[in-house]
Amino acid sequence: MTTTQTTPVTARPTNATEIGVFTFADVSPEATGVHADQRLPEIVEEIELADQVGLDVFGIGEHHRPDFAAPSPAILLAAGASRTSNIRLTSSVTVLSSDDPLRVMEQFAMLDSLSGGRAEIMAGRGAFTETFGLFGYDINDYDDLFIEKLELLLALRSGRPVTWSGRHRAPLVNVVVHPAPVQQLLPIWLGVGGSPESFVRAGRLGLPLALGIVGGAPARFAPALDAYRRVLDQSGHQPQPVAVSVHGFVAKTSQAAADTYYPADAELMNRVARERGFATTSRPEFDRKILANGPYIVGSPGEVAERILLLHETLGHQRTLFQLAVGSLGHLDVMKAIELLGTEVAPIVRAELGGRTDAHATQTLANEALDQRRAAPS
Amino acid sequence: MTTTQTTPVTARPTNATEIGVFTFADVSPEATGVHADQRLPEIVEEIELADQVGLDVFGIGEHHRPDFAAPSPAILLAAGASRTSNIRLTSSVTVLSSDDPLRVMEQFAMLDSLSGGRAEIMAGRGAFTETFGLFGYDINDYDDLFIEKLELLLALRSGRPVTWSGRHRAPLVNVVVHPAPVQQLLPIWLGVGGSPESFVRAGRLGLPLALGIVGGAPARFAPALDAYRRVLDQSGHQPQPVAVSVHGFVAKTSQAAADTYYPADAELMNRVARERGFATTSRPEFDRKILANGPYIVGSPGEVAERILLLHETLGHQRTLFQLAVGSLGHLDVMKAIELLGTEVAPIVRAELGGRTDAHATQTLANEALDQRRAAPS
Repeated sequence: MTTTQTTPVTARPTNATEIGVFTFADVSPEATGVHADQRLPEIVEEIELADQVGLDVFGIGEHHRPDFAAPSPAILLAAGASRTSNIRLTSSVTVLSSDDPLRVMEQFAMLDSLSGGRAEIMAGRGAFTETFGLFGYDINDYDDLFIEKLELLLALRSGRPVTWSGRHRAPLVNVVVHPAPVQQLLPIWLGVGGSPESFVRAGRLGLPLALGIVGGAPARFAPALDAYRRVLDQSGHQPQPVAVSVHGFVAKTSQAAADTYYPADAELMNRVARERGFATTSRPEFDRKILANGPYIVGSPGEVAERILLLHETLGHQRTLFQLAVGSLGHLDVMKAIELLGTEVAPIVRAELGGRTDAHATQTLANEALDQRRAAPS
Repeated sequence: MTTTQTTPVTARPTNATEIGVFTFADVSPEATGVHADQRLPEIVEEIELADQVGLDVFGIGEHHRPDFAAPSPAILLAAGASRTSNIRLTSSVTVLSSDDPLRVMEQFAMLDSLSGGRAEIMAGRGAFTETFGLFGYDINDYDDLFIEKLELLLALRSGRPVTWSGRHRAPLVNVVVHPAPVQQLLPIWLGVGGSPESFVRAGRLGLPLALGIVGGAPARFAPALDAYRRVLDQSGHQPQPVAVSVHGFVAKTSQAAADTYYPADAELMNRVARERGFATTSRPEFDRKILANGPYIVGSPGEVAERILLLHETLGHQRTLFQLAVGSLGHLDVMKAIELLGTEVAPIVRAELGGRTDAHATQTLANEALDQRRAAPS
């Protein structure tokens, strides 16, 4: 009765890969005339469709900029929660360094209750740095902030009373998060860009790892993932799942996929490049990125399925996340891509690697644990 | 073209009263066995029904305690937003003193986009004090915190770049909230318990006022409301609406209403009374509270309508909010009460005082303003 209560319920590795989509809630009014009040309800429809076609996960990334409309991922995920029944709902990422772990945990605990135990957090440091100034943090504390806040978030997730003090937040005395999440341990993934120490950190902490690939050959991350798995093991943790997120798109034909995704993706990439003084992108560069050893997965359903299987062979990951809705990409194209991912891509991948994976096992375990906790005298 | 852009779009007073409901998302597992994962989805259903039967407003109150399951009202309101089309969605209240006005504004701006311009904020200091310790504030700064944070919230609402510094938050330089809300000025009500200076503050700031009545005769607030209206006028502000919130319930008969509401309300009131060392309540006390000059509005549809009209005669308010779902009150009883409020109570009140009031005018104005802002060169 008490043994399963301490069993970690974070999704465990299998030989399969879940398939999901995520977005930063891009709005590019100057390019498309689409504002947040149109785009956010569209995203709720996309979450709903992703659930209907059986995709495993939907993610929303946090930003505080004019070109992304989701400063609070949990708000948008909650709107999706009340219109879905199976899909898991995750931040991708929560910029934890500049947020309060207590508020974050409260919000995702509410999302977990609203969704019947489908909430997850992907904790990251953020690819943009605007949040440091906005919320009064020093960019020089980049690492220290993240480590301290992650530690507190994990403590608060435990459900046990937390007494804590640190440098970047007021101390806590015997604090328990209300409401309690449905899942015994709400999954917290460590969002990782590419810095080697992040892989080691995730391994030491025993956390599932979410790798965001934006450039280069995915295969180059294989050694770092091996290191992560080694550190997990050496640190006495059970194996944990790896998620890989990519820029990607699917349409009926390769040509249609590339012709639809390129201009939208370029609109975003060039906006960011101009901001940072980087070189802008081009169609030939894009065409190289979508090659079999490239960072983007763009093509027909058969090609995309093939690429997921190849990626899985290379990285042995358990979850593939597609950033479909980027830059100026239109809602209807996103909807068509979600439908194809669910109805044509996923069946091929599942036939090859096995059925749906951890989400359900997680759910079942979590519910068992909850039932036991409730049955037990408090 | 620019004149209407500066027109305040907060709901303006009329001779009518909107009717709404609100809750703190009470959970009383020890009394009812109902946990947050059951209760929060139930509340989404209640919001949906309230919309279907034509109620004007639904509110969620913020708490960080085991007996209330909504530390982030916007999360629950967002879940409701994607299942409703007309009802306005408000916090009741947002505990502004211990929150970050920038995060609050971002969250309600997202809610506003998700709901097509139906979001409102009721800013308050909170009836409980647990948030001060949790978020590292000093209870001795009770007033100063609220004033400073309200000032910043109002500045951020303007949509103009905000450069600001204060005692209780990191300074901001040229910050604009993203996404922009749909409404030109997202309504911010000042939540007031009863302290005279709060009425004066709301008047000076030109804010609509939300009066929470928990005890005593409502009529005793008439002088304070007169003072509020006088200060509004003297401060050069346009007339603003007043909301009055009460503990209240409606059922087919007076007897059924009282018999259903009393034990649930007593469960809550006595829990709080024990915490604070106050005397517990009793049925005779409850029966006095629901008399025509008492603080509670509990009865048959005809009686409740009559009480709203009487209250309106006394206080001249524009919005009546019922805290139906308190303590251990069950979902089905709440659903029946919402249906009666919408289908039987509201028609009587509207026939007497005129139709739906400001929400639509607000919405129209806000949309016109938005269209103009978009049409204008930026």
